[in-house]
Amino acid sequence: MKLELRRHIEEIMPLSIKDFDLIAPYFVPQRFTKGEFVFRQGDKVPYTYFVVSGLLKLLYSDASGKEHILSFAMEDWWETDYYAFYQEGRATMSLRCLEDTEVLHISLEDYHNLCGSFPRMEHFFLQKAISGHIASQQRILSLLGSSAEERYAMLLKRYPSLIQRVSKSQMAAFLGVSRETLSRFYS
Amino acid sequence: MKLELRRHIEEIMPLSIKDFDLIAPYFVPQRFTKGEFVFRQGDKVPYTYFVVSGLLKLLYSDASGKEHILSFAMEDWWETDYYAFYQEGRATMSLRCLEDTEVLHISLEDYHNLCGSFPRMEHFFLQKAISGHIASQQRILSLLGSSAEERYAMLLKRYPSLIQRVSKSQMAAFLGVSRETLSRFYS
Repeated sequence: MKLELRRHIEEIMPLSIKDFDLIAPYFVPQRFTKGEFVFRQGDKVPYTYFVVSGLLKLLYSDASGKEHILSFAMEDWWETDYYAFYQEGRATMSLRCLEDTEVLHISLEDYHNLCGSFPRMEHFFLQKAISGHIASQQRILSLLGSSAEERYAMLLKRYPSLIQRVSKSQMAAFLGVSRETLSRFYS
Repeated sequence: MKLELRRHIEEIMPLSIKDFDLIAPYFVPQRFTKGEFVFRQGDKVPYTYFVVSGLLKLLYSDASGKEHILSFAMEDWWETDYYAFYQEGRATMSLRCLEDTEVLHISLEDYHNLCGSFPRMEHFFLQKAISGHIASQQRILSLLGSSAEERYAMLLKRYPSLIQRVSKSQMAAFLGVSRETLSRFYS
């Protein structure tokens, strides 16, 4: 699993084998099966997760039990409840597997130790945080300013493979529409 | 203006006067008057902005001309169109002053030079990017899972001073409701 992490870091910056051998032990492999929760609303969130393979959804269940999907995470994505992880609060959302999933996780303490020992990793995490921030700003924009049909078209353009991997009900929960409304976009 | 930046950086990490004297020249003061655009949709966005004083809105005008407010930015906030700034694309949103505003801006080239010369600044920018990412995740959550009335209550809790500084029509454009709906929350 760790080869994927090395390739992923090297997309941002070069990394010697020696450096990677020192970095790799901070990351711990973990496997989940389809349907399993990585964490649930209300939990502590001790890790941030790098997705090696599989697909997850970051979701929020409202007071009426209705599920809203904030984002999907697949190969090469980092995902967690950022507030709960970095500020050590309780999760306001849940992370659940839509497929069997392999991740590498790192704890907050190890994250700080890693950045302290290898300041270049702060450069890497900064690039990832910026990418995450860009994606979030685009998601806010799409929620505020676009119709559900436009959001659907944008999603397909950005993640063409997602439509094969995500059920229509999951897609509807991401777009914020009913399944009936969504089915009109599939024609 | 630069004293505010020093205090702001020192909230994250200690900084000697000598270090700050080397960092400060990368940041350029700029003043805007109420109503002025810092950048508009379609523009290049050569800077990211640290707000020294004043208030701005990050907004999107949809095809029908309706305005949606992604976020407000006030003292001690960093704001820009992150996609347009970091990936040197065109702005998908506009940044406009709601009050007379003083900022310090830094260009992408200077941002890279600064981080190259002072790797500790990557630590600072990483903390800011994480805070921005947390705020964005919370905003997505509020747009997906909360009623406008709940969003209004959350906004007041987080930014109690904002209600005095933002008009009702601006507040409505942030919450995604009509002015009439908003006026019911003010009772």
